[in-house]
Amino acid sequence: MRVLGIDPGLTRCGVGVVEGSVGRPLTLIDVNVLRTSADQPVAQRLVTIEKGLDAWLDEFEPDAVAVERVFARSDSSTIMGTAQASGIALVVAARRGLPIALHTPSEVKAAVTGSGRAAKPQVGAMVARILRLDAPPSPADASDAVALAITHIWRGGAQARLDAAVAAASRPARTTPMRTGR
Amino acid sequence: MRVLGIDPGLTRCGVGVVEGSVGRPLTLIDVNVLRTSADQPVAQRLVTIEKGLDAWLDEFEPDAVAVERVFARSDSSTIMGTAQASGIALVVAARRGLPIALHTPSEVKAAVTGSGRAAKPQVGAMVARILRLDAPPSPADASDAVALAITHIWRGGAQARLDAAVAAASRPARTTPMRTGR
Repeated sequence: MRVLGIDPGLTRCGVGVVEGSVGRPLTLIDVNVLRTSADQPVAQRLVTIEKGLDAWLDEFEPDAVAVERVFARSDSSTIMGTAQASGIALVVAARRGLPIALHTPSEVKAAVTGSGRAAKPQVGAMVARILRLDAPPSPADASDAVALAITHIWRGGAQARLDAAVAAASRPARTTPMRTGR
Repeated sequence: MRVLGIDPGLTRCGVGVVEGSVGRPLTLIDVNVLRTSADQPVAQRLVTIEKGLDAWLDEFEPDAVAVERVFARSDSSTIMGTAQASGIALVVAARRGLPIALHTPSEVKAAVTGSGRAAKPQVGAMVARILRLDAPPSPADASDAVALAITHIWRGGAQARLDAAVAAASRPARTTPMRTGR
């Protein structure tokens, strides 16, 4: 499956496309950062982000979109812009009917490094290792977007296996119906 | 001028259209609340709000849009959804090239009641009085959207008069160029 990871932000919005499936090597398709200028009104900056994300969806046609879940307790000076940008990311994906998943920063850290409290450089280092890159994607927003996509593929894979297991477990009951009394 | 006021929110997004100009009676064109269900995913709720706002812009063709400025210090349980909804409101208006103004809750209270610390019922009461309504628009989100539109017309009018005064003051300098020395 191909996943677009989005690390929402008003000044820098990370975008990364990863392809692969659980248990197989993952491939980085592309990664970048959408930037908007603080000199522009917020509304115009959001339109720029909307256009940028639409262009990425057009070009890479992902099967799903993974967006970082934003919390009110985050750094308050930028949190409003981040929340607004995340709203745009959700709308752009939902308009196309794409499956959307929200992953928290600690879920992403735990998925790629094994620790929900890992530092940013450790996340970047693991992203590079997982995707067999010479260096982590830069800046950190780019690495974070790629880490989101990786997390989604791995967690989505686990969920898919769970669903398959549940389906398999319930199958015999249907093919061999239980007999009552008599 | 005709202004669409938007009080952004994920569960209830107030929308109100007011027409008029400074120093003349204002007219309420329409007011309502766009609602989305908490049972739906956030992305889908934001798409519903986007469609609703687009429909209002199509129907009423306002000259400008006034959106409540959201602060991080607001009630934290709903602030993320409010910020995301405000991002959608800004994008929907900016995509059409409409002038957008952000007004803070205290600016709105001060404009319609004379006090930046007025209580909600007082805002509603003044909205009803200004627009010659039998009762305040209900719920409060609807009243707040209308108050935003009123604020915008009144503040915009003051700004327009200031701009005109500045233009008038600078005009003689241009028609009677200053002579240097000699």
